[in-house]
Amino acid sequence: MRLIVSLFPSGRRLPADIGELLSDVLVRDGVPLNLYCGRRGVCGKCFVEILSGEVPPGDESERDLAREKNLGLGRHRLACRLRVQGDLVVRVPEQALIPRARILTRGRGREIPLDPMVRKVAVRSVRPDLQSPRALLDGLKAGLGLSALRVVPEALFEAAGVLSEALESDSPVTAVLGAGDELRGVERGNTSSRLFGLAVDLGTTTVAADLVDLGTGTVIKTAGGLNGQSVFGADVVSRITAAFKDMSRAAALRAAVLASINGLILELSRESGVDPGEIYETVVAGNTAMSHLFLGLPVDGLAVAPFAGVFTAAPPLPADRTGLKINPLGRVYLSPNLQSFVGGDVAAGLVATDLAARPGNVLFVDLGTNGELVLKTDRTMMSTSTAAGPAFEAASISCGLPAEDGAVERAVLRDDGTIVLETIGGGPARGVCGTGLVDLIAAFLRRGDLAPDGRILRLEKRLAAAPDLFLTASDIREFQLAAAAVKTGIRMLLEAAALNIEDLNEILVAGAFGARLDVENAAAVGLLPRLPGDRVKFVGNTSLEGARALLLSSRERLRAESLPRVIRHLPLAQNEAFQNIFIKELPFKPWPPDEAPQAPRKEDS
Amino acid sequence: MRLIVSLFPSGRRLPADIGELLSDVLVRDGVPLNLYCGRRGVCGKCFVEILSGEVPPGDESERDLAREKNLGLGRHRLACRLRVQGDLVVRVPEQALIPRARILTRGRGREIPLDPMVRKVAVRSVRPDLQSPRALLDGLKAGLGLSALRVVPEALFEAAGVLSEALESDSPVTAVLGAGDELRGVERGNTSSRLFGLAVDLGTTTVAADLVDLGTGTVIKTAGGLNGQSVFGADVVSRITAAFKDMSRAAALRAAVLASINGLILELSRESGVDPGEIYETVVAGNTAMSHLFLGLPVDGLAVAPFAGVFTAAPPLPADRTGLKINPLGRVYLSPNLQSFVGGDVAAGLVATDLAARPGNVLFVDLGTNGELVLKTDRTMMSTSTAAGPAFEAASISCGLPAEDGAVERAVLRDDGTIVLETIGGGPARGVCGTGLVDLIAAFLRRGDLAPDGRILRLEKRLAAAPDLFLTASDIREFQLAAAAVKTGIRMLLEAAALNIEDLNEILVAGAFGARLDVENAAAVGLLPRLPGDRVKFVGNTSLEGARALLLSSRERLRAESLPRVIRHLPLAQNEAFQNIFIKELPFKPWPPDEAPQAPRKEDS
Ligand code: FES
Ligand code: FES
Repeated sequence: MRLIVSLFPSGRRLPADIGELLSDVLVRDGVPLNLYCGRRGVCGKCFVEILSGEVPPGDESERDLAREKNLGLGRHRLACRLRVQGDLVVRVPEQALIPRARILTRGRGREIPLDPMVRKVAVRSVRPDLQSPRALLDGLKAGLGLSALRVVPEALFEAAGVLSEALESDSPVTAVLGAGDELRGVERGNTSSRLFGLAVDLGTTTVAADLVDLGTGTVIKTAGGLNGQSVFGADVVSRITAAFKDMSRAAALRAAVLASINGLILELSRESGVDPGEIYETVVAGNTAMSHLFLGLPVDGLAVAPFAGVFTAAPPLPADRTGLKINPLGRVYLSPNLQSFVGGDVAAGLVATDLAARPGNVLFVDLGTNGELVLKTDRTMMSTSTAAGPAFEAASISCGLPAEDGAVERAVLRDDGTIVLETIGGGPARGVCGTGLVDLIAAFLRRGDLAPDGRILRLEKRLAAAPDLFLTASDIREFQLAAAAVKTGIRMLLEAAALNIEDLNEILVAGAFGARLDVENAAAVGLLPRLPGDRVKFVGNTSLEGARALLLSSRERLRAESLPRVIRHLPLAQNEAFQNIFIKELPFKPWPPDEAPQAPRKEDS
Repeated sequence: MRLIVSLFPSGRRLPADIGELLSDVLVRDGVPLNLYCGRRGVCGKCFVEILSGEVPPGDESERDLAREKNLGLGRHRLACRLRVQGDLVVRVPEQALIPRARILTRGRGREIPLDPMVRKVAVRSVRPDLQSPRALLDGLKAGLGLSALRVVPEALFEAAGVLSEALESDSPVTAVLGAGDELRGVERGNTSSRLFGLAVDLGTTTVAADLVDLGTGTVIKTAGGLNGQSVFGADVVSRITAAFKDMSRAAALRAAVLASINGLILELSRESGVDPGEIYETVVAGNTAMSHLFLGLPVDGLAVAPFAGVFTAAPPLPADRTGLKINPLGRVYLSPNLQSFVGGDVAAGLVATDLAARPGNVLFVDLGTNGELVLKTDRTMMSTSTAAGPAFEAASISCGLPAEDGAVERAVLRDDGTIVLETIGGGPARGVCGTGLVDLIAAFLRRGDLAPDGRILRLEKRLAAAPDLFLTASDIREFQLAAAAVKTGIRMLLEAAALNIEDLNEILVAGAFGARLDVENAAAVGLLPRLPGDRVKFVGNTSLEGARALLLSSRERLRAESLPRVIRHLPLAQNEAFQNIFIKELPFKPWPPDEAPQAPRKEDS
């Protein structure tokens, strides 16, 4: 027997099976439910209101969550916990839906030579020589003035039709040529002035895309939105878990992210007048899990030791095999993953910041579910990753939000002891994103609400940033764990390179966890060292900028592809020293000591 | 209103529309009707018997054909002419069906070094190094001992699944590697001893295939059958015409030939125990039109001047894009076409006979709808083609048959003046194939039934080979035209190379038009020169053998691909001398003069 879940006030009727999770019923029918903690029943984002119908009572923890959110007991239920037993009428409040996102697209601008992987050349006529009638493709080759022309298999069929037509009407055609004079496509007429590319930052939370004119290198338009996979959980681990040994779930994750990117393509197309068929090249930069899920590849290997994905560098893929709605003969290039947990987003960041070519000793820090670290010295490049947990993406924080409208991104302690909040979009505060979290903890520390060991020094046992915005002891703990993991990684990387903190000429901090990281506060909570001058720089979301560089320049692509070979990986998980250092790094303490930066003493590192 | 065409005796009921051609009704439902002349109503092969139902009377030429075949007037009608106006009951006689074919697979054996484009290597474990957890494909690369591994896009998806499984069970896998260490696929377990290839001779009339063990180079099994395109006409020109500007017809032609080859694959698989999925490489050798139609590419350019196909050398195609039912990750390689009418079958013939490496001056003659000629001298290679018409394939001959069961392939004039016929398969003579035709004309000439200018010197105005087997004046004319075209081509090629006939060290005659060409008779009718010793050799169907060489040897493939560049084309159609020479070559006259071979005099050439 099929049950019916009716939505209020729209009246939409969704079919359901007895015992089915309400969240599955809703998501299957396209309701953008915010299953932020990945259906674990802990974030409380998916509370919906049951207006009519019999439901079993919720358990203790669900009731606690409802109370914390001031929701009426009994009527509000977690969609990820409730199994449908009879017909229901349900209201899905705005807070339970995935919010519209604000996308960070700025980064560290640098000049990229324009040398894309694809170009167009018009040919006036493909009429073959009557004295030596060979084939239309030979006529095209002659018209292009090339001595060799390698046709990519998928282009042969379409090219054949276009060339046959052009022969009859004796009209021009335009060849789309890739590296090594491979023929990727043939278009009717002279379209050589219109050739476009797409750079995609495939983030765990958000997806951003630049539409780029490959003839000029100009960014025509940028669009952004949430990664539709969010309904499977806000963080990477939730999604790997969701796809683990469940290919249909993996397929659903793939479909979700494809729909998100294809939606951006349509939006960019509509607003720019560029037809998606005019896009022949796409670069996607995402972490290892995201790039696997984007292709629909199994992530099982990423879920268990020894934590290995399928690929580091994937071959450029024909667009029609990826499902991306650009020209089917276009190519999709994935920014290469460096290691299982140092992904293509980091590689793009290294390209955007030109890390390999920066003088001196430079540390690149990407803060996310993993703290991804790359240290460049004059002699070597080394990477490591630390399982920081989702604290920086704020997914494990009770009041956490991704960097979206309504998220607190800055918090400033005034002299009168009050804390002033700034939210993304400027509206009322709905939660706190990663950068806001750093600021808040720094403010609470400074105000004496928080002991250096992390204990809350207030009677309430939670710290109020605003009337409805609290950090709990467990939130503080999550942050401490995440920060300690990053700090330990930095220490071990420096030790492996035989460097002290002050030997670093630069620390570049990247991450999609907020618009602006206050470097001073990050030093105050001990997340990052304090170094003289402006040696510590927040470079924001470098993934999109790097993707654009990989789109515009074959040379940058070659350099990115060499990174996995030149970067040595320092595994932390197996390192016995890790736990010892980690424990020592848990307290909030500026690092190196507040006043005078100096070498960490031997027993600390 | 739908009409019903019922088949007798099976009782099968085929739906039909008013006014639809009966042949279309029958073919659509899978009746293998022999539409030999391509529905032109001239061959009379598609006579069916109308047992009940109203049909309009046939026209004059149809009645003549019926009378010639001793068929009852009124009841026997050409399926390609009859438009259905009401329900019918029809008997389709055996003679109206495409007969089971006999395939010629022998050729000139020569040693081919075993160096295929694909190989298998087993790897015991893909478990990545715990100290440096990269990706499964990196583990595979390490296991293979390779420094680089390029994954072909279409292999990524399947490889991912197999590698993930193998990681979990820690079981071996087998990599399928192509040229340049590209990864074409990954199989579960150690399958390295099982790797197979397919060589296909895609003839206009017949299709033959060798299943080859790529590990040993052994031919495991050979299969052959008719090219299913035959229902669209027996000869190449009919099919080009059928597909001209009619993509649905082109698609039907593609489907027909695919079904034929896929049928052979199934047959080979069943009889050998080799799974089609174990076949990773296929080489197809066919003429330019056949290779286009096989891929479903437009042949419009081949129908009109300047007669240009789409491609000469096609890229190796992923099997799943061709529709060939081998491993979807396998590749299909087309023997390169040299010119619009010097196709991949000729290229395969040049490979099989190793023409380029033969000492001295060698002429390669491939007799088919076109006479395709390649002359190799010490200084140059030149090709040309002459539109011989379908006489050698016997399609324009009233009693013509392809080289199949029941076709007269030899005719010997005995001293008592009687002619003894030998048929393919040894059964009763149903018609005459190309080699039988040469023998018959030589016999009639020798017996004095035929004047050297082609006139029939008998009262009957036709020449009986057997009680039901006649050559008409028009048949003789067809043969003369075809032979004169070939002779003219040879003369002009020799002239362009400044050679006399006796300068030729060898003439290699290839063709799928019969099992054995009597070289002496070919000289007697003037089709080929008479040269001392065994300088003129019939090498049979070299296309399949060449395809096998291209399957087994990367080196042969490279050599074949260089042929279009090194062979100069001599266009005949635009050559003013052609007509003059052609007219002089029409009579049957041995060439050079019968007794003592000598240089043709200047005014002849
Ligand atoms: S509580 Fe339902 S998804 Fe988090
Ligand atoms: S007469 Fe019907 S196909 Fe030839």
